[in-house]
Amino acid sequence: MIVADIVVRVCPLSAEAFAPFGDVIEIEGRDSRWINDNTCRRFDDLTHIDVLQHGGRPVLSVFEANPRSLPLQIRTLERHPLSSQAFIPLQRGPFLVIVAEDGAAASGHVHAFLSSGLQGVNYRRNTWHHPLIALGEISRFLVVDRGGSEENCEELTLDTVVLVTTSLPAGRPGGLEL
Amino acid sequence: MIVADIVVRVCPLSAEAFAPFGDVIEIEGRDSRWINDNTCRRFDDLTHIDVLQHGGRPVLSVFEANPRSLPLQIRTLERHPLSSQAFIPLQRGPFLVIVAEDGAAASGHVHAFLSSGLQGVNYRRNTWHHPLIALGEISRFLVVDRGGSEENCEELTLDTVVLVTTSLPAGRPGGLEL
Repeated sequence: MIVADIVVRVCPLSAEAFAPFGDVIEIEGRDSRWINDNTCRRFDDLTHIDVLQHGGRPVLSVFEANPRSLPLQIRTLERHPLSSQAFIPLQRGPFLVIVAEDGAAASGHVHAFLSSGLQGVNYRRNTWHHPLIALGEISRFLVVDRGGSEENCEELTLDTVVLVTTSLPAGRPGGLEL
Repeated sequence: MIVADIVVRVCPLSAEAFAPFGDVIEIEGRDSRWINDNTCRRFDDLTHIDVLQHGGRPVLSVFEANPRSLPLQIRTLERHPLSSQAFIPLQRGPFLVIVAEDGAAASGHVHAFLSSGLQGVNYRRNTWHHPLIALGEISRFLVVDRGGSEENCEELTLDTVVLVTTSLPAGRPGGLEL
C-alpha cells in the first residue's frame, strides 16, 4: 500500500510542454546544415548552456544511474541557482523528468515527463527538478553543468507525498491509497 | 588501386596514446562518487571544455555523420585556434579519430585511433584533426564546442596522400599501391 497526497501522471516529453522548465535536446524537427564535404549534418546549438554566471565554467560529466520503478514516491526536489543542467541519455533508454513551477514546488504540484530515450533535457537555471531518474536498467547520461567554487544546489523537501505513475486511478486525485 | 604516399595503421584509442592531442572521454578507470541518495554515480569533469577564449560560449550540438569505409584516403585536416571540440558517440558505434602533431601535419604523418564506441574524444585547442569519421552506419554524436563571432576553423590540405587502414601491407610504407 502506498499512501500519497498527490498523484501525478507521466506525460510524453515534448519541447512545447517542457518549455517553461528548459529545453528538450533532440534533432527531430530541428534545422540542420551539411558540413565536412557533405558527409555530416550539424544540428547546431540545441540548447542554452547557461553556466558562466559568477565566473562559472562548463563541465562535462557522466552520470550512471540505477533504475527506479513506477509508481514512484517523491519527496524532494532541487535546483541550481547559478546554472542550467543538461542530461543526454547515452543508451537511448526512456527516463523520467520531474519538474515544478517555483510557487508550486513545495506543495507537490509537479509535472512528470517521459523522455523517449532519444531526447535529452536541459533544466533552465533555478528550475525545480527531481534528481535523475533512470528506468529499466543501469543507465549512463552525459551531463553538462557548471564548475565553480560557489554553492549551486538548493534542496527542497515537499510538504506532501507525491506519487508519480503512468495511469491515474478512477476518482479524484488526492489522499489516495494505491 | 589506391595510390598513397603514406599508409597509416589504425590503433586502439587510449587516454595515454591520445594525450598529446586531447582527452579521451570515458568512465572506465575513472573515479566516481555516489550522489542523489546513492542512486547514481557521478564521473565528474571528464575533460577540459576550453571554449571561453575571446568571449566564447559553450555550444551543444548533434552531428549526424554518414559512415565511411576503410581503407580511407585523407587529404585535409582542420583545427580550431580558439577552442577544444568534444565528440561523444550516441549510438555506441566505433568511429575513427585522426590527429597530427603541428609540425608533422602537412607532410601527412598523422595518427589514427579507433574509438570503442563507448569512448568520446575532446580535441585540444589548436590540434590538427580530421573531421568526424563515422563507421558502419549513419551515426549521431553529441558535440561540445564554441560559439562566438570570431573565425575558429583553419583548414590544411596535406602535401601527401594518406591512406588510413587497419593493416599495413608487407614492406616499407611509402609510395604504395594497394
